[in-house]
Amino acid sequence: MKEKSNILIIGAGLCGSLLALRMAQRGHEVTLVEKRPDLRKETQDAGRSINLALSDRGLKGLRLAGVEEAAKKLCIPMHGRMIHDRKGATFLSKYSGRTNEYINSISRPGLNMLLLDKAEKMPNVTLKFNHGCKTVDLENASATFKKYDTNEEVTLAGDIILGTDGAGSSVRKSMFNHKKFLFSFSQEWLTHGYKEISIPPAEDGGYRTYINALHIWPRGEDMLIALPNLDGSFTVTLFLPYSNSDYCFDTLTTREMVHEYFNKEFPDAVELMPHLAEEFFSNPTGPLGTIKCSPWSSYGKTLLLGDAAHAIVPFYGQGMNASFEDVVVFDEILEKFSSEGKESHWAEIFQTYEAARKKDTDAIADLAVDNFHEMKEHTASPLFQKKRKLETAFEAEFPEKYYSKYSLVTFNENITYSDALHRGRAQDKAILNLIDDGKLPDSFSLEEKLEKVKKETEEILHDDAVVRNLK
Amino acid sequence: MKEKSNILIIGAGLCGSLLALRMAQRGHEVTLVEKRPDLRKETQDAGRSINLALSDRGLKGLRLAGVEEAAKKLCIPMHGRMIHDRKGATFLSKYSGRTNEYINSISRPGLNMLLLDKAEKMPNVTLKFNHGCKTVDLENASATFKKYDTNEEVTLAGDIILGTDGAGSSVRKSMFNHKKFLFSFSQEWLTHGYKEISIPPAEDGGYRTYINALHIWPRGEDMLIALPNLDGSFTVTLFLPYSNSDYCFDTLTTREMVHEYFNKEFPDAVELMPHLAEEFFSNPTGPLGTIKCSPWSSYGKTLLLGDAAHAIVPFYGQGMNASFEDVVVFDEILEKFSSEGKESHWAEIFQTYEAARKKDTDAIADLAVDNFHEMKEHTASPLFQKKRKLETAFEAEFPEKYYSKYSLVTFNENITYSDALHRGRAQDKAILNLIDDGKLPDSFSLEEKLEKVKKETEEILHDDAVVRNLK
Repeated sequence: MKEKSNILIIGAGLCGSLLALRMAQRGHEVTLVEKRPDLRKETQDAGRSINLALSDRGLKGLRLAGVEEAAKKLCIPMHGRMIHDRKGATFLSKYSGRTNEYINSISRPGLNMLLLDKAEKMPNVTLKFNHGCKTVDLENASATFKKYDTNEEVTLAGDIILGTDGAGSSVRKSMFNHKKFLFSFSQEWLTHGYKEISIPPAEDGGYRTYINALHIWPRGEDMLIALPNLDGSFTVTLFLPYSNSDYCFDTLTTREMVHEYFNKEFPDAVELMPHLAEEFFSNPTGPLGTIKCSPWSSYGKTLLLGDAAHAIVPFYGQGMNASFEDVVVFDEILEKFSSEGKESHWAEIFQTYEAARKKDTDAIADLAVDNFHEMKEHTASPLFQKKRKLETAFEAEFPEKYYSKYSLVTFNENITYSDALHRGRAQDKAILNLIDDGKLPDSFSLEEKLEKVKKETEEILHDDAVVRNLK
Repeated sequence: MKEKSNILIIGAGLCGSLLALRMAQRGHEVTLVEKRPDLRKETQDAGRSINLALSDRGLKGLRLAGVEEAAKKLCIPMHGRMIHDRKGATFLSKYSGRTNEYINSISRPGLNMLLLDKAEKMPNVTLKFNHGCKTVDLENASATFKKYDTNEEVTLAGDIILGTDGAGSSVRKSMFNHKKFLFSFSQEWLTHGYKEISIPPAEDGGYRTYINALHIWPRGEDMLIALPNLDGSFTVTLFLPYSNSDYCFDTLTTREMVHEYFNKEFPDAVELMPHLAEEFFSNPTGPLGTIKCSPWSSYGKTLLLGDAAHAIVPFYGQGMNASFEDVVVFDEILEKFSSEGKESHWAEIFQTYEAARKKDTDAIADLAVDNFHEMKEHTASPLFQKKRKLETAFEAEFPEKYYSKYSLVTFNENITYSDALHRGRAQDKAILNLIDDGKLPDSFSLEEKLEKVKKETEEILHDDAVVRNLK
């Protein structure tokens, strides 16, 4: 008979609620605790319909827990980036030359509610809302919470604690402040912040701009993006430097400045945002940070997963997908230990999980920062544009032979993030240098160009490996 | 007439005392505050004669403040690494093929005392010892201290604060906890810790092993090093994993285990260390960490320098040298601002300094971690040994044409650390791959090999630049 554990999961966001569902499906007794009110009962923040990009790695996690089909009903496919220039002209840059490769816009609260509903239906899951985690007793797998509705303090314990309480994780802070073991930690902020604005539905309830794309207005340092919602609206996000620029969060302090800036940079978007200035000043400005840490576990009692272990910037659309993939990898390791009758060997399980997973969450964190720069430069660099054009042609013409870095990360869930990073960066370097050196002349057929790129890529990977294997 | 400022310098270690001296030479009023007792008056920790490697960048900083010649009297030149194998056989691997390129072993307290003496002689320097910094009021350039001798609390203020209080900096912690601006921060620990042991002088007062070398006993994961002291002793440092190894700090818990381990791995060293086990258990085990942060300054009132801004692991022998180079770079910027009549534009000065300097302290931090791996592998990798042999031949035969990564970092103070990193890594990659691919056959003359390496290095630098310039 298999041993079942009492698992205390702290944080009932996307990662925590999927994890709770899966741990319950594995037969464990799960208590899922969340500091916020139950988002299925409380009214959401007005005007903030936050959405996310769901792609293949995330779908794999949902499939594992049997909720993929239900989630897909909340999805709006986005086949590419709709690039808007300063004059309002647009062109669609497809994510892939393969037609079955697209990403999905999905509502964060919508998906979270779905996962909470599914978890709640399990007889071995207990949900507790309005419980703010104050401290974790790492050595004893217990945590003290403040109940926001009654102001009481309560202590909950389990055989283990899984910390899925997001980028600002209290569980992680307990590790950082613990001081009895060496805890590596980094928080790296970009020079930019973000602000959400909405494009409401059209008067007939339809969409004010093309629905099946992720819209981008790239402007060098600044960038606007928009993702569609099921109700006909779009959620727009402005990425802008905090300071040291003519237009930045430090200087956009009046309605006039906001309108001057948007009219100059994003005239076609302004028409779609009737509440621009009101929302600009009422919505918060969020920071963009990367968080890494290690170890993820302590005393074989507590493990961090999701953003609590590895918060990343949003520029690859992989934050939620990486967290769901955490659940897949963790589940695979549980399955393996279970098959060996070691389902309660938590210390070893946690270390095996981190050894298998950390290189990949480090990789997607670095890729996401890379893409911050790439997306900004999309219009600025002719060399980069030539690369994208060539890659799209490769993927359309040779769908089984070529995968861009973006495709490797987004649509190839059987390749790890770290492999995607190494191969993707090598391909990028090969193409950029071959173009720059004039080694892909027009006289070459597309197939000859592909052969040249593949050969150069292999050489770069080989040369890197010779150096890396010494380390 | 030039404007003079009141400068509060927190931390009177090597960086703080050199900085105090230099700021006083520039005419500022300096208060230099230190949490420890005056090390010129209190007895040092028995048996802990800590020494450091002083090389060209550090000497440049000492020269700037007119203390190079006095410091050189404390130096013992080390011309190379004396490698000890398991049987006690040794060979000297020179740091450079050029005879004038060597590093120096110098006593940390000896150099610190010299710098404090020089600073104290300045009429515009006030020294305060036994003042532990508790909090810094970043917006007002004042700090609260606990006086350890009287238990009083005292607040000191200046026009600006320079924080040179080392890797565990209180000034930096005030920035981390401040929360009114985004503070990027990382602490990364190696899996290894270190422990100091001593080789006492011989009975006739001489040295028990060769004096003019940095001794190394590389053993893969473990490593022992020894640096000479003026009194005939050597300070030995053991680098060992904390755990997950047959011999590690977790398992070396008895005298028997310690002797078993040292007799097996370092038999020729054991003979030189009569107090091995006593010292092993009485001396502390230190962690090895890298600290990076940004911004280094806040409100134009407070700036971090030295280890407080960028603590690094000791494997390039550059910690002190990087801190002294900070003083050189800061002084150059002060000179420039002063020539423009802007000697009090501290906010701009601090930002200019960080913009000029941070890429270089990031680079030496990364190089030091690289070298941790390189030093361990010195005996393990035939490919690496072939590379070192070839580089030493290049430097001996063509001293004006070739500089190894180690030489670029250590002996070429006019090249920045970041340039040394890019060029040094490219050279390493070129040589390793050319050897691995059999492209440097014995039939080549040394000059032909050098030409091949230089050409390959330039190609690597070019290919990297094409990618980097897009970012």
